[in-house]
Amino acid sequence: MWRERGSGCGGERGSCDDDDERKSTTTITIFFLFKFPPKETGVIIKAYTRGGMIPEGASYFLSWRLAVEANNARGWRTVPSQCLSHVEAYMLGGQYDRDLDLIADQILSYINEIVPSDDGAMDAWILDVDDTCISNLVYYRGKRFGCDPFDPAGFKAWALKGGCPAIPAVLGLFKYLVRNGFKVFLITGRDQETLGQATTDNLRNQGFIGYERLIFKTAGFKGQRASAYKSEIRRRVEKEGYRIVGNVGDQWSDLQGECSGRRAFKLPNPMYFVP
Amino acid sequence: MWRERGSGCGGERGSCDDDDERKSTTTITIFFLFKFPPKETGVIIKAYTRGGMIPEGASYFLSWRLAVEANNARGWRTVPSQCLSHVEAYMLGGQYDRDLDLIADQILSYINEIVPSDDGAMDAWILDVDDTCISNLVYYRGKRFGCDPFDPAGFKAWALKGGCPAIPAVLGLFKYLVRNGFKVFLITGRDQETLGQATTDNLRNQGFIGYERLIFKTAGFKGQRASAYKSEIRRRVEKEGYRIVGNVGDQWSDLQGECSGRRAFKLPNPMYFVP
Repeated sequence: MWRERGSGCGGERGSCDDDDERKSTTTITIFFLFKFPPKETGVIIKAYTRGGMIPEGASYFLSWRLAVEANNARGWRTVPSQCLSHVEAYMLGGQYDRDLDLIADQILSYINEIVPSDDGAMDAWILDVDDTCISNLVYYRGKRFGCDPFDPAGFKAWALKGGCPAIPAVLGLFKYLVRNGFKVFLITGRDQETLGQATTDNLRNQGFIGYERLIFKTAGFKGQRASAYKSEIRRRVEKEGYRIVGNVGDQWSDLQGECSGRRAFKLPNPMYFVP
Repeated sequence: MWRERGSGCGGERGSCDDDDERKSTTTITIFFLFKFPPKETGVIIKAYTRGGMIPEGASYFLSWRLAVEANNARGWRTVPSQCLSHVEAYMLGGQYDRDLDLIADQILSYINEIVPSDDGAMDAWILDVDDTCISNLVYYRGKRFGCDPFDPAGFKAWALKGGCPAIPAVLGLFKYLVRNGFKVFLITGRDQETLGQATTDNLRNQGFIGYERLIFKTAGFKGQRASAYKSEIRRRVEKEGYRIVGNVGDQWSDLQGECSGRRAFKLPNPMYFVP
């Protein structure tokens, strides 16, 4: 059997309190000796390379962000420091919003391409809450957009204020789903006991009205990884007879595992990783 | 039951001959009315937006590429025309290579973080061939980097030449795997009868030597989607007693489905989509 050295945090980032137990990942650099360099490609790339077209730091951030969004980079604790100005520019300069808008368009195309089942009343969508429905960007701005390590107490204090703004593209999608008769389940790793009321109020004051159910993490799931907890919740939803036709989240752990739905949509989030 | 209107091509891009049967996806644009615009975030974004910092077309290409690499965009037939100069700059200007290098580093970190099983001789890696081990970039340059529709005859003629250069990052990874005793299975959607010999020769002349097996698509799999065909091959590999500890490909259809391995790594490819 394969075992990972240094397993990740056992819970959602919003409820994880064993952050400092996490082990840092050792980066191993290996130099390759290439016996067979590609000939034709080499010539073309040389001809097209315009040194400095993309500044080195921005280029690294692009590679790093791609690795995060394609689910290649896992278990990372903080955004690399050299990415700070780039993650800030990405989150606040408009590109993050444009990325969200395009995904919302793609979700709408998907909705309109599928033929509803006869029993449409049981067609369900799963939406994550943090940085899917409502945004923690204001909070993470104070944490250097994820370059600082996760601060459970700080995050809890922020969430208790109930002041997370809606993410416009997802609020629009949410309203479209409700209006068209889909049953929307909001599933969050936030702890029910401590953050239940504040989160319920926050979602309401941002316009998330008309969902089928808002499901928090209860004591029984404490210590479980997000993907296991969310899989179990989805399994229960399906057991009630619902068909999960779509699943939207900013973390791969929202989207992978059992009963993950007919289609999953990954929203961008380069600021933190939830195992 | 949900049914998709207009299912995709039934085979791998390299062997698909029903391209013109594919239906174009209707893009549905819906304008949202946001009742509850986010207040705090709105102010911040306004303050940080520097109009024109990222040219509009480049910004759209970034969003589109993110959607492709995060597996949100599916079933697309061609790269949007307005992306042509940007996909060219991405593929030839160095960013594509840097993206590949970072993923190769992450794969090496993964290899070095896991503890091999006692029976290490059965630890296997799956690698795709086209645009994973060897590159079709020279060919796709003549097809406007995927802005032109797929041309099965043209691709076959290109592949028959056996002149695809190795992708350096993956060749390095391949050699590292072989040197460290992993059993490497190369699984391709290329047709065995027509492209078997040329592909075998091509891989050898680019330095892919020492793999456990090179598996082509045979007549029995004709018309099957890549994910189904590759799942079945992986299932057979596992049935022989191998443990798939890693899986690398440039298409999500290389990585999803049954027996998909302990970890999957998605390499970038914004030029075409294989269902």
